[in-house]
Amino acid sequence: MAAEQARRSPLLVIGGAERQGPGGTAILRRFVELAGGPAARIIVIATASEQPAVLEAEYGALLTGLGAGHVAALRLNTRTQANEAAAVHALAAATGVFFTGGDQLRITTVLGGTRTDSALQRLVRDGTVVLAGTSAGAAMMSATMILGGDSPGVTRAGVRTGPGLEFLPGVLIDMHFAERGRLNRLLSAVALYPHELGLGIDEDTAILADGDCFEVLGTGAVTVVDAGAASDIRVPADGPITLTGARIHVLPAGCRFELSGRRPALAGPALERGQAA
Amino acid sequence: MAAEQARRSPLLVIGGAERQGPGGTAILRRFVELAGGPAARIIVIATASEQPAVLEAEYGALLTGLGAGHVAALRLNTRTQANEAAAVHALAAATGVFFTGGDQLRITTVLGGTRTDSALQRLVRDGTVVLAGTSAGAAMMSATMILGGDSPGVTRAGVRTGPGLEFLPGVLIDMHFAERGRLNRLLSAVALYPHELGLGIDEDTAILADGDCFEVLGTGAVTVVDAGAASDIRVPADGPITLTGARIHVLPAGCRFELSGRRPALAGPALERGQAA
Repeated sequence: MAAEQARRSPLLVIGGAERQGPGGTAILRRFVELAGGPAARIIVIATASEQPAVLEAEYGALLTGLGAGHVAALRLNTRTQANEAAAVHALAAATGVFFTGGDQLRITTVLGGTRTDSALQRLVRDGTVVLAGTSAGAAMMSATMILGGDSPGVTRAGVRTGPGLEFLPGVLIDMHFAERGRLNRLLSAVALYPHELGLGIDEDTAILADGDCFEVLGTGAVTVVDAGAASDIRVPADGPITLTGARIHVLPAGCRFELSGRRPALAGPALERGQAA
Repeated sequence: MAAEQARRSPLLVIGGAERQGPGGTAILRRFVELAGGPAARIIVIATASEQPAVLEAEYGALLTGLGAGHVAALRLNTRTQANEAAAVHALAAATGVFFTGGDQLRITTVLGGTRTDSALQRLVRDGTVVLAGTSAGAAMMSATMILGGDSPGVTRAGVRTGPGLEFLPGVLIDMHFAERGRLNRLLSAVALYPHELGLGIDEDTAILADGDCFEVLGTGAVTVVDAGAASDIRVPADGPITLTGARIHVLPAGCRFELSGRRPALAGPALERGQAA
């Protein structure tokens, strides 16, 4: 948890579909506020998408419409681009960075280990930017991304994972969670890696991680699966996994959760909801 | 749990698709064995289906092929039929009763409170039959059936329930569980009714309940959700439910679970698997 404690920036990790959800654009509005509102300088990175120009334009217009002072896209399609001083320079003055959806493996393969990656890690550690991402842009923030696996049941083959860029260490993130019925693959993942806390984030829903706690925002819920509490885990090469005594929490907006303690921090959610409204 | 303790018959509660699953017909073979094999007298009740003749013929051939001495259908399409002495008489000599899939509400509306229902309850209490059911025929055995609700998220509106015929009291059963991604609706149901233990049974998978324990059979798993352990439950009229500290168990074949204690009884599953093989 050393990296966790050292992080000063808030992270906004969104489960997808935050532009047209029932909550309107409340999550993106919160991002703009956190980034400074009229004083915000936001960089949109659409590396995950094969149509970055479309998403850059859409998020540019949307974030500007929500009151962001300045929004620009940083087009990173290649590792060469991600290693250029220009990319690092573009990020230096940012108060917010937004990663769009797409394919999370595009983010890791294009950005992982580059100067842009290092610069982002430094900015987040120093607390000078708010880092936000949706869908693939959310998954890549975790220690371990879920890459695929929608076969039914809780099995070794039921989930494929890969290392994320670890802005939020110690967690394993899945997104579009309720909408795509993904609990089986999250259970499979935490059974294999019970040291990681499983977070399933619904669409139009986000966690705002600040220090060791996160708060849930949006219209859906965050499902936390903690297999660290499991009394028994058996993972056969083939066939279903045995997992007993795991803990599960379903946390809608206003709920807070303590990451290192792996427990809900429910004190006063009504008050906090009131403040947020 | 009084009714539970008084029950002497084993119950075989199947999550659906047990005729063409990867396990072949192992679950139905177990049913035939429990009912007495060559000495078995099995009654098939296809009331849940709108095409009872088709299912009666299919299960008749299948169970006979698996070695059942005698298999007959009991056609109950109306409450009048379910109240006739002939129906009660037909069940009197049975060693096994099998309920097919279809619509669980057809079972409760046609059979609930009839003489057939009373006769079945008595036979199960006395331990003279093995009662088996698949899909709708499984759901109706519970205290509370899940009737519908496939909207995403854990919400009050996300699940519709109704009382089952309560052969297995204290539990809430959902079926086709992993295959249809139904954990959200099971979580919704146990959040509303945490006194009921939630059981999600995969296809080609069953629980064999004998006394206060059940054992898992088949190629999938049974997901047990215990919201009795929850530290906090908040159910708004609209929007997502808060549920913290619930317990979840994923139990494949060979695992045993203690119903009243709400805990896995894992001692020696390897041995038991060996014995069953």
